[in-house]
Amino acid sequence: MSLIQDLNWRYATKRMNGQKVPQEKLDYILEAIRLAATSYGLQPFSVLVIENEELRKKIQPVAYNQPQIFEASHLLVFAAWNDITDAQIAAFMGNVAKTRGIPVESLQGFHNTIAGTIERLSQEQRFTWSAKQAYIALGTGLAAAAEQKVDATPMEGFDALGLDVLLDLQAKGLRSVAIMPLGYRDEANDQLSHAQKVRRTKEELFIEMA
Amino acid sequence: MSLIQDLNWRYATKRMNGQKVPQEKLDYILEAIRLAATSYGLQPFSVLVIENEELRKKIQPVAYNQPQIFEASHLLVFAAWNDITDAQIAAFMGNVAKTRGIPVESLQGFHNTIAGTIERLSQEQRFTWSAKQAYIALGTGLAAAAEQKVDATPMEGFDALGLDVLLDLQAKGLRSVAIMPLGYRDEANDQLSHAQKVRRTKEELFIEMA
Repeated sequence: MSLIQDLNWRYATKRMNGQKVPQEKLDYILEAIRLAATSYGLQPFSVLVIENEELRKKIQPVAYNQPQIFEASHLLVFAAWNDITDAQIAAFMGNVAKTRGIPVESLQGFHNTIAGTIERLSQEQRFTWSAKQAYIALGTGLAAAAEQKVDATPMEGFDALGLDVLLDLQAKGLRSVAIMPLGYRDEANDQLSHAQKVRRTKEELFIEMA
Repeated sequence: MSLIQDLNWRYATKRMNGQKVPQEKLDYILEAIRLAATSYGLQPFSVLVIENEELRKKIQPVAYNQPQIFEASHLLVFAAWNDITDAQIAAFMGNVAKTRGIPVESLQGFHNTIAGTIERLSQEQRFTWSAKQAYIALGTGLAAAAEQKVDATPMEGFDALGLDVLLDLQAKGLRSVAIMPLGYRDEANDQLSHAQKVRRTKEELFIEMA
């Protein structure tokens, strides 16, 4: 199967059947998210992995009682850094140095470049920038799930502040930006499971510059 | 090849060799972007496709003279809707109705849901929301390029306002948010072409909730 076939197969699944996603498929999807591109490679977010049924029952009212929260196998909660600190940039530099076997001192210019970009942003702009990086990973995770024939639904329709409180994200320096339930479509009960995919045409979406 | 192998193969290519991406591979990457998930399926962005060498020469100074702008085969400029109008929501509803063969009147609830979400946002927040949707498509496009063994570099390092003026985006209701050069790595001149990929570990990036 090609990615195009996978993307045509997937859709934003509203009803799932409760079937469990095998650990190796979950690990595969998480690995794709881990490998996703981000600006500078900073990965300014965390992803919470939630299987626990009781916790998902508590999340459901915070997510306007959407059934896929409970009918899914796992929830991935994408949570962006609320702010970006110099310590976080330094930790990233430490990882670059260690991974590539180079002295961290040789990365001072890179450190300064990131710090310079960040210091021009307000705290809220830093959070927004981090959230956008998380969305690249979200797009990558959706592709990985589709490749593994695991259904996934990107969700913004939830009370982010309520979820942050429930998951104690503030203490972790995080704010939730999207939920991605993973599971299997319930074709009998999901009226969208056979609906035609709606997209703008190529001519509408793309602007060819002569 | 699996998506994981593709993601390990790709990197943010800083030097490209000028080789042209065949039309069928370009079309494949664009189709993946067109099929990418967005909130409600609204696709609140356009993607400019730029091959013209003269235009790319003009873009280069706006992008801090980064060489991949000119050494790439094509540039994709992701440009988010500056605002979201009721006419745009209505056009989307028209597309849903036409694609699925249902009366547009039956979609009034869906229209109201989107309009209700949008009207709680300021114009700037609508733009930010649109930009985040574009980043899902960016992540999808990066996966598609890697699958096709086409190098791609997500770029935020450019003067967005300058690029908007150059491409007359304001008149189109758009603002540039990211550039994705497509092409082929110049292994001899790109010092990153053989560098180890740097990512946080699974234990660092993911938080397993018991």
